[in-house]
Amino acid sequence: MTKRNLETSFSPALFMPDESLDSIVVIIDVLRASSAICTAFANGATAIIPVAEVAEAKDYKSRGYLVAAERDGYVLDFADFGNSPFNFTKEKVSGKTIVYSTTNCTAIINLASSAYATVIGSFLNIGAITQWLIKQDRNVLLLCAGWKNRFNIEDTLCAGAIAEKLMESSFYITICDSTLAAIDLWSLARPDLPGYIEKAAQRTRLKDKKLDDCIDFCLTPDFTDKIPVIKNGVLVNNVL
Amino acid sequence: MTKRNLETSFSPALFMPDESLDSIVVIIDVLRASSAICTAFANGATAIIPVAEVAEAKDYKSRGYLVAAERDGYVLDFADFGNSPFNFTKEKVSGKTIVYSTTNCTAIINLASSAYATVIGSFLNIGAITQWLIKQDRNVLLLCAGWKNRFNIEDTLCAGAIAEKLMESSFYITICDSTLAAIDLWSLARPDLPGYIEKAAQRTRLKDKKLDDCIDFCLTPDFTDKIPVIKNGVLVNNVL
Repeated sequence: MTKRNLETSFSPALFMPDESLDSIVVIIDVLRASSAICTAFANGATAIIPVAEVAEAKDYKSRGYLVAAERDGYVLDFADFGNSPFNFTKEKVSGKTIVYSTTNCTAIINLASSAYATVIGSFLNIGAITQWLIKQDRNVLLLCAGWKNRFNIEDTLCAGAIAEKLMESSFYITICDSTLAAIDLWSLARPDLPGYIEKAAQRTRLKDKKLDDCIDFCLTPDFTDKIPVIKNGVLVNNVL
Repeated sequence: MTKRNLETSFSPALFMPDESLDSIVVIIDVLRASSAICTAFANGATAIIPVAEVAEAKDYKSRGYLVAAERDGYVLDFADFGNSPFNFTKEKVSGKTIVYSTTNCTAIINLASSAYATVIGSFLNIGAITQWLIKQDRNVLLLCAGWKNRFNIEDTLCAGAIAEKLMESSFYITICDSTLAAIDLWSLARPDLPGYIEKAAQRTRLKDKKLDDCIDFCLTPDFTDKIPVIKNGVLVNNVL
């Protein structure tokens, strides 16, 4: 059996699309895009259309779509709600296609568009996504969204948690220092993940904007078995 | 007292020159450029001229300079010796100006040229450099050279070791996740640094080329109190 290669990019700025043509890319943006997307599918959303520009989101709204849109953590006036996972309730999203306005996440999805497949990972779907990855005979690249192209702690820990499970499966090898470091940081954080995340810069940023109410939820493992997958630029629910 | 800001970039690809105009940038390339440069000054070198292009190094050689030049770990035929710190002996380098051919290191030095000051850090001068930084009333950015713009373990650990000492001094604050992660990884590695480095990809690369003989030396703390500083693109010995 040829082992599959496991790699991690700590930031979109470190991601090399040409080296991932044959890989499944897992996009990780724990606070909050990945968690919101997983929650939406857990609550029955049919599809999510990520859009980069506010004007585009506004145009979708005028055509009757449900629109989640924030800039710098503040809900845009024309939007139905903001980007917190708590907004994506069953009542609001079940059976619906949602337009999700997020500059960062859309840019990352475009960046990874040449990969064999692109899926969304978070603590919320960590068990399902690792099981699903193990079933595919493919190299895996864990792509941390980071913050403004910088390294961040929460995405790295989620990458480390996924990487640890994949390495335990014995189907993978890694010669990637980022993966090894992520696993080690995860080993430090695991005994008290919310406590460890206290020091993450994004936690402070969300707290300053009073948007930190969802953080503990975003760190919950296995809230859902949904695996959002990107098909032609649109997020749909993967059939396990 | 206004506290100074401490930041870490895990790769030149994550370094933002415009945000470091007022900072001292510490370039860290443990295996092997930083360690070789520190060794050269410890052994009495007067100056080191980093050059990117082989042709430039060759030109310097024809003008009588001592030239250290490798590509992919192999000594170039016209050079006096390669880039291993073991080559920079007192006999060879004392009182000399050395031309050091290194594409990566030269690119990083150029990248950091707009900073308030740029110095070279390694385990070999870790005590001296942290003491010196503490004496300056400046923000500090630890810039890991990485490998081909990727994160690497050995530079991160050295950054973590420096960051830990700076934070203990109480002159610094950090809201930088990279710095916090580097300190935590260092806390894991410290009890057995050579053992921890065993898993670093660069260790394997050097081993494959039989260039790993210098690794344990490169992990030696406080071999020298020299602090190489860049002045007009040339490395000189900082007067402490």
